[in-house]
Amino acid sequence: MSTFDFNNHSHRRYNPLTRSWVLCSPHRTQRPWQGHRESAQIEKRPEYDPTCYLCPGNQRANGENNPSYTSTHSFPNDFAAVKSEQPAMPDTNDDLLRVEGVRGECHVICFSPRHDLTMAEMSVSEITNIVDQWATSYQDLAKKEYIKHVQIFENKGAAMGCSNPHPHGQLWATEQIPEEPQVELESLEQYKKDHNDGCLLCNYVKREQQKSQERIVIENDSFVCIVPFWALWPFETLVLPKEHITSLPKMTKEQRVDLADMLRRVTCRYDNLFECSFPYSMGIHQAPVQGEYDYAHFHLHFYPPLLRSATVRKFLVGFEMLGEPQRDLTPEQAAARLRACSEVHYKHRQV
Amino acid sequence: MSTFDFNNHSHRRYNPLTRSWVLCSPHRTQRPWQGHRESAQIEKRPEYDPTCYLCPGNQRANGENNPSYTSTHSFPNDFAAVKSEQPAMPDTNDDLLRVEGVRGECHVICFSPRHDLTMAEMSVSEITNIVDQWATSYQDLAKKEYIKHVQIFENKGAAMGCSNPHPHGQLWATEQIPEEPQVELESLEQYKKDHNDGCLLCNYVKREQQKSQERIVIENDSFVCIVPFWALWPFETLVLPKEHITSLPKMTKEQRVDLADMLRRVTCRYDNLFECSFPYSMGIHQAPVQGEYDYAHFHLHFYPPLLRSATVRKFLVGFEMLGEPQRDLTPEQAAARLRACSEVHYKHRQV
Ligand SMILES: O=P(O)(O)O[C@H]1O[C@H](CO)[C@@H](O)[C@H](O)[C@H]1O
Ligand SMILES: O=P(O)(O)O[C@H]1O[C@H](CO)[C@@H](O)[C@H](O)[C@H]1O
Repeated sequence: MSTFDFNNHSHRRYNPLTRSWVLCSPHRTQRPWQGHRESAQIEKRPEYDPTCYLCPGNQRANGENNPSYTSTHSFPNDFAAVKSEQPAMPDTNDDLLRVEGVRGECHVICFSPRHDLTMAEMSVSEITNIVDQWATSYQDLAKKEYIKHVQIFENKGAAMGCSNPHPHGQLWATEQIPEEPQVELESLEQYKKDHNDGCLLCNYVKREQQKSQERIVIENDSFVCIVPFWALWPFETLVLPKEHITSLPKMTKEQRVDLADMLRRVTCRYDNLFECSFPYSMGIHQAPVQGEYDYAHFHLHFYPPLLRSATVRKFLVGFEMLGEPQRDLTPEQAAARLRACSEVHYKHRQV
Repeated sequence: MSTFDFNNHSHRRYNPLTRSWVLCSPHRTQRPWQGHRESAQIEKRPEYDPTCYLCPGNQRANGENNPSYTSTHSFPNDFAAVKSEQPAMPDTNDDLLRVEGVRGECHVICFSPRHDLTMAEMSVSEITNIVDQWATSYQDLAKKEYIKHVQIFENKGAAMGCSNPHPHGQLWATEQIPEEPQVELESLEQYKKDHNDGCLLCNYVKREQQKSQERIVIENDSFVCIVPFWALWPFETLVLPKEHITSLPKMTKEQRVDLADMLRRVTCRYDNLFECSFPYSMGIHQAPVQGEYDYAHFHLHFYPPLLRSATVRKFLVGFEMLGEPQRDLTPEQAAARLRACSEVHYKHRQV
């Protein structure tokens, strides 16, 4: 044991976007697992479920009926975490107890009228409709002056707290920039200052493309999907445009199609990895809707919890909560596993 | 709706220890829950389980037998995330790919020989043995020069990734200060500079004691248990000494007993809240083991995931991962709920 081996020895890696460390203990994959197992997903869903409040024509919690939509469908969340109107908060701040009122809007975006689909089984043109809907929502919300930031995301699977399997995502728009994008934006801004106007993520894409490419999963003309050097979740990926794009509305038609292509291929590989409907939280970071953010670099994070199989996940608990996030396999190993997956969905494979 | 109501209107609160924000949407507790349910814990465990690798006398993964211990028992983790010896890492750092080797030690600390107990059902003197063991381990590890930090924690319950219900905690000692305590230490150091040598946590204890006390759960002579103003998990608590204590070895015998008393009472209230063995991750933040950290203020975090019942947890996913952590009930409501719980364990209640 005279030379350091990244596949065998413990090390920590630095995330320059969030400016924090992740501990990587690759030998830990040899540990037997006797703990909790996720219940396997029920795989057979009907195309239409009369009890689903997201299916076309069905009744929602607020009593209204969904239209008979045929593509995507966006509507306000009946249980919104933030609302557009509430009284102003009196200033009760002191040194230690700091608080701000938060107004905003929460939307639900159905990805498809079909109850049984997910992005992994949808076509590129169907997914392009989702990308277009995201861009439209972003632009519509940008018109409301009090809204500063639009967070687009998807929770997929019961393991990720999703309470309805109908394919859908969410959007929470708020009058402040939330914590995580705020930290990333500060990193991008600072990097630009320190690096002669360079962009952290543009440079990172180049860095990954130049050398061994060991963390690249797939590419197309406009985007690349990488297991980032500092990935925290076992099969976390980062989808990045190859050129500097600040937000969805700045993308050309071709770039939106290429983004849809990436989404299809990445989610399909995810499903094929353990032959299950792969759970994740996914979301977009891009420029806030008010002000100048030329240093923002559009990107999309996938945070999937599964580690060893369809039923054994990584728990970010204990040391991870109180000390530092810890991962078992290396990002390079994860990328190799994802590269080895097919882009034909396992359900549709010919035998 | 002309005045702002903390129990009804969305707001965000600032955590001065981690310097980050938490979104609070109290009206969201009215949302129906149709998602994942935890499996109810198997409540009846034997006092001794012949298949448990933590029970006295049984064989461990490395082939050795546990001693017939009668109080606590500490031993090196057979699947350690960090090891005391590994080759030095060559310097491969560049601007975007930063990495460090991490050496250290991982220990397991059995809390009791009894397989069927948890702190919630143990006596104060039994829990004092745990506190003493923590202090001893901390001091022993401080003698190893390369170790900088000792992270003591417990994952309790399958929902928190714990793979063996035998009551035990862990300790991961590392040659760097991990991310989370590092951030907290920087906050404490900065606060001290900015506030005339004052301590953020000493001042916070006073602030909570002076006014309405609405976030205080319980107190004894030496400690107070608070649902912090910035709590992220639904029933998160912070156990703080009332005077400035930097680390476990600095505590008097009485203070250690008082800490054990707090641990018993808090965990018992937790179990009684939903009448189940309440899952959580818990851990201690204190001074690192090398160097001068007079600004460190010993404290203990409880991060429990349950939200509504023994089977419905809070998922920190989607918006929480990509935007900002979000909580449903207010910290003040959580504190009131915990204050209303008994300190007699529900299993031992006379009917
Ligand atoms: O060490 P254990 O109990 O087997 O494992 C548990 O605690 C560790 C430390 O918090 C985590 O890294 C693991 O994900 C979790 O399953
Ligand atoms: O809005 P949903 O899907 O009902 O709820 C889910 O996503 C939200 C946003 O990430 C989270 O706050 C909830 O904890 C989660 O269960």
